[in-house]
Amino acid sequence: MKILVLGADGYLGWPTSMRLAKLGHKVFMIDNFSKRKIEIENQITPLMDLTPIQKKVTLWNKSSFSKHKIDFKYGDMLNHRFLYNLCAKVKPDAVIHYAEQPSAPYSMIGREQAVFTQHNNIIGSLNLLFAMKKFCPDAHLLKIGTMGEYGTPNIDIEEGYLRIKHKNRSDLLPYPKSPPSIYHLSKCHDSANLIYLTNIWKLRSTDLNQGVVYGINTRETNLKKEFCTSFHYDHIFGTILNRFFTLAAMEQPLLLYGSGRQKRTFLNINDTLQCITLALKNPPKKGVCEIRNQYTEMFSLKDLAEKVVLAAKDLNIKTSIKNIKNPRIEKDKHYFNPTNRSFKNIGLKPEKLTKKFIQNSIIFVRNNLNKINKDIISPSIKWKD
Amino acid sequence: MKILVLGADGYLGWPTSMRLAKLGHKVFMIDNFSKRKIEIENQITPLMDLTPIQKKVTLWNKSSFSKHKIDFKYGDMLNHRFLYNLCAKVKPDAVIHYAEQPSAPYSMIGREQAVFTQHNNIIGSLNLLFAMKKFCPDAHLLKIGTMGEYGTPNIDIEEGYLRIKHKNRSDLLPYPKSPPSIYHLSKCHDSANLIYLTNIWKLRSTDLNQGVVYGINTRETNLKKEFCTSFHYDHIFGTILNRFFTLAAMEQPLLLYGSGRQKRTFLNINDTLQCITLALKNPPKKGVCEIRNQYTEMFSLKDLAEKVVLAAKDLNIKTSIKNIKNPRIEKDKHYFNPTNRSFKNIGLKPEKLTKKFIQNSIIFVRNNLNKINKDIISPSIKWKD
Repeated sequence: MKILVLGADGYLGWPTSMRLAKLGHKVFMIDNFSKRKIEIENQITPLMDLTPIQKKVTLWNKSSFSKHKIDFKYGDMLNHRFLYNLCAKVKPDAVIHYAEQPSAPYSMIGREQAVFTQHNNIIGSLNLLFAMKKFCPDAHLLKIGTMGEYGTPNIDIEEGYLRIKHKNRSDLLPYPKSPPSIYHLSKCHDSANLIYLTNIWKLRSTDLNQGVVYGINTRETNLKKEFCTSFHYDHIFGTILNRFFTLAAMEQPLLLYGSGRQKRTFLNINDTLQCITLALKNPPKKGVCEIRNQYTEMFSLKDLAEKVVLAAKDLNIKTSIKNIKNPRIEKDKHYFNPTNRSFKNIGLKPEKLTKKFIQNSIIFVRNNLNKINKDIISPSIKWKD
Repeated sequence: MKILVLGADGYLGWPTSMRLAKLGHKVFMIDNFSKRKIEIENQITPLMDLTPIQKKVTLWNKSSFSKHKIDFKYGDMLNHRFLYNLCAKVKPDAVIHYAEQPSAPYSMIGREQAVFTQHNNIIGSLNLLFAMKKFCPDAHLLKIGTMGEYGTPNIDIEEGYLRIKHKNRSDLLPYPKSPPSIYHLSKCHDSANLIYLTNIWKLRSTDLNQGVVYGINTRETNLKKEFCTSFHYDHIFGTILNRFFTLAAMEQPLLLYGSGRQKRTFLNINDTLQCITLALKNPPKKGVCEIRNQYTEMFSLKDLAEKVVLAAKDLNIKTSIKNIKNPRIEKDKHYFNPTNRSFKNIGLKPEKLTKKFIQNSIIFVRNNLNKINKDIISPSIKWKD
């Protein structure tokens, strides 16, 4: 297949591109480096310096890792002419769309970041849908959403749609979401646009509501040290697990937002790659936007912190848990029961979060302690001043 | 009260501004003339030439119709500095937000119009919320939504939220909407942003899901011929009733999209003004986004056409009904049972759509037959090519 990977310079974009190339697909990578720009603005760097994407691609293409060369182009989805030319020229069979501003805290800094997030994510995706309608209406669009879009309703979380019974009548309707940030709202808006335009224009799309991804090692990132992907531990792009690994490695207390009873969904980066390839193999019919919840396990933040403390202890690393005032506005104690049966039904074999994995992650950070910038760990962005 | 009216040059903005001024409020009108620009681009004019808003305001202020002078300023909500300065200076007690691109067909012309609609409506409203948070967090925001946001689900349509029972559990969640155009999607996105930010920032807002408004005569528009508001009969801004009145006056068949069994909600412009004043008098508590369905009657498009044919017949005007291929993608036959109890509960006394009203409307158009541009009536914008 010819596959466009949008947002290909990101944490998942690069590992996804390598995996797909390895599997024999012809991969066209696109990025506008907006994440790198946000990093610069906010004086954030990932733990390990990243090799520039052009160099990674050159190294990959010099090797014999895939039969086709990977192609990389700089481009911005807000520039519809770029997308139109790209789709007209490549005529992709599938498009994997990671190209959105991915940070909830970033979207809550202030007006400028809120507007950037909604504008970039909504309008970029609209441009893509128009480009696909015009130049590759049969291609399969895989858009990355987030489990966070659902919020934490007091009912079971289904996959995108919900059979609602109300006053003796019933309908299958879009799942009513309660997104907990301006970023999450942007993803909901996007998803609603996607459902509608897929349906009326008879496109085919899969919306992947992904949990929090952890891990940086895949078969392909391990091929060469330059192929590593980003490990963010900061308060803007750092996920909770990465931040816990980092604080543990520093022998600092793990910062738990609020009581830590909030429950979230998680998956290993290798399971993301597995899900992407499974979704690619199972395209929906034309006119259908298939929605799949993409995660493997569910933990409370406190559970995670306790796992990390225990795993660290066995490495003779002392850490503890420190509850801090939650900078976010979110429910502390809540029901949470999302399903992920759609990926299980098409063959997902989940990898568990093991003690070994946690220990390896702490050791990885510990081996790079000198690279940590302590100033970017504590949360400074509040949902309300 | 000091009241900002955003989108004050529009069909409802001007009558609303006069009514509020008459009631003793200090009114600050704002418009960016984007509707006039769309009219020019698409070679559309309302039936009667409109007096420029500055001139209307001057005429009003020269009269003794209200104790305070009305203020008008040109400004665009995409320019956040304008909104910040405005809110800082005026410190309004209420903001009535009509300033959105209001046409579903316009949003479906192509990419440019789709992007304009979502960008203008979503980002303009986001800017407003940030301005209000900063400069007038206690003010009551009344945002005009549309009943169309709900789509035509097979269950009763409640007001903004729905108590959902699922697998023996229950929660009150945002009503799951099925918006039928890119414009309607923009209004849903807006509403979701509004609910969220009202809640976390402890603002107070009312989202008014309005039906199709008809009528151009209010106590204030009748005061002077220059005070009339717009009557659009074209395929972009013309509502179904205005288009039927126009075709009847021309003794042309009324064009029914599809079977005409689609049901929609309606209200008289005087009831819009009544609803606005009722909503103003009943602000929600801080942190609450109250959602009210703003309509008085419900008809199928076929019912309406038949009413118009009958009313015309009694005026000795011959017209008929012609079913044409529906340029929109929408359900032809569907369940439709929306409630409007929240306005009834606070005192709305609805005006009915009478035969007399229909006849007066047809006569009004007939008296201006020479002004009709026949080329702009038939729908030329299709939801799918």
